[in-house]
Amino acid sequence: MNIPDKVVNRLTLYHFILDDLREDEKYISSTKISNLLNMDNSQVRKDLKYLDNSGKCRVGYEVKSLKRKIEECLGFKQTKDAFIVGAGNLGSALAKYNSFKDYGLNILAMFDKDPKKIGTIINGKEVFDISKVGNLASRLGVDIAILTVQREYAQGVANYLAGAGIKYIWNFTPCVLDLPKDVKIWNENLIGSFLQFTNNDKKEEIK
Amino acid sequence: MNIPDKVVNRLTLYHFILDDLREDEKYISSTKISNLLNMDNSQVRKDLKYLDNSGKCRVGYEVKSLKRKIEECLGFKQTKDAFIVGAGNLGSALAKYNSFKDYGLNILAMFDKDPKKIGTIINGKEVFDISKVGNLASRLGVDIAILTVQREYAQGVANYLAGAGIKYIWNFTPCVLDLPKDVKIWNENLIGSFLQFTNNDKKEEIK
Repeated sequence: MNIPDKVVNRLTLYHFILDDLREDEKYISSTKISNLLNMDNSQVRKDLKYLDNSGKCRVGYEVKSLKRKIEECLGFKQTKDAFIVGAGNLGSALAKYNSFKDYGLNILAMFDKDPKKIGTIINGKEVFDISKVGNLASRLGVDIAILTVQREYAQGVANYLAGAGIKYIWNFTPCVLDLPKDVKIWNENLIGSFLQFTNNDKKEEIK
Repeated sequence: MNIPDKVVNRLTLYHFILDDLREDEKYISSTKISNLLNMDNSQVRKDLKYLDNSGKCRVGYEVKSLKRKIEECLGFKQTKDAFIVGAGNLGSALAKYNSFKDYGLNILAMFDKDPKKIGTIINGKEVFDISKVGNLASRLGVDIAILTVQREYAQGVANYLAGAGIKYIWNFTPCVLDLPKDVKIWNENLIGSFLQFTNNDKKEEIK
């Protein structure tokens, strides 16, 4: 099914909410979800229509079944293996972020060029010399890299990854990468995100 | 001016591109930008219309002037002060992310409850006891907090921040926060972002 990006994002947030409910909360209303996220109730109901909602009844959505349906729909159980490239602060933080695994993202190894980092283990993930990325990618069948190197090295390392068979780059650097079109890039633009946040507020003040 | 979120996000990416150009590249075409980002040229031109584009000529946009206009439009020079709450891996990584300052986000201090972290300095930012957040927020006039605590503490710490006068929370935890409506929350949903990335790809494969 073709689910718009914004809906994917919101379904993940709904899942966070379901995950945090107490054991004895068996049902949840779309109103409760929409209030928590400060959004329209009609939008929540529209989003949930992307799932097969046989679990909906008079008192709301059945929590367990709704959770499972979001998991199936977004593929939390179809684990995707990935490498982290750049074992600095952000790379290490992401390696230690255990929630990724619950949502289907499995970090197998890390790469760096700093001899002091190579051979260390971060949250169970070994840091390898960047020159080994091609070999390990083909041996382990990994084609996703999370790029967290410093800005000035981003393009050079990305070129190297593309040459080593990486097909998907989740780019955390503040750099727009210029790569062959068969490599898919998703820019995790933290600065843009912050500016949206503060820009949104300006809009509200104008109202 | 009321600029849609997606446009804010893309203008930031255009700025990254301009920032990475060589000194002797005086002009840039919308086609070059759209090719780098693998998007429609018409979309780039539409986005750039939000700026006052007197710098556009036959050979393209004048780089320096375009850069300055994006900066003015998105408010890079109107620095916003913020705290990081949670001096763990992600909090420390964000404290060390020097690009934030270039784009108008200034981290003044960090907070944690771990006695081993309190008093340490991370990239020039001191870690204070979380109990001091209200006092420092009012003294320094800070009302933005970047929340990077562990999931299980997120709601409790957020309640505390709201009580301490924080009005904006940039939430990096995989937790939907339940707070009074006068506190604005921006969910940096990394998991949703990753799922959008992989979901997008599925869409392309279906085509």
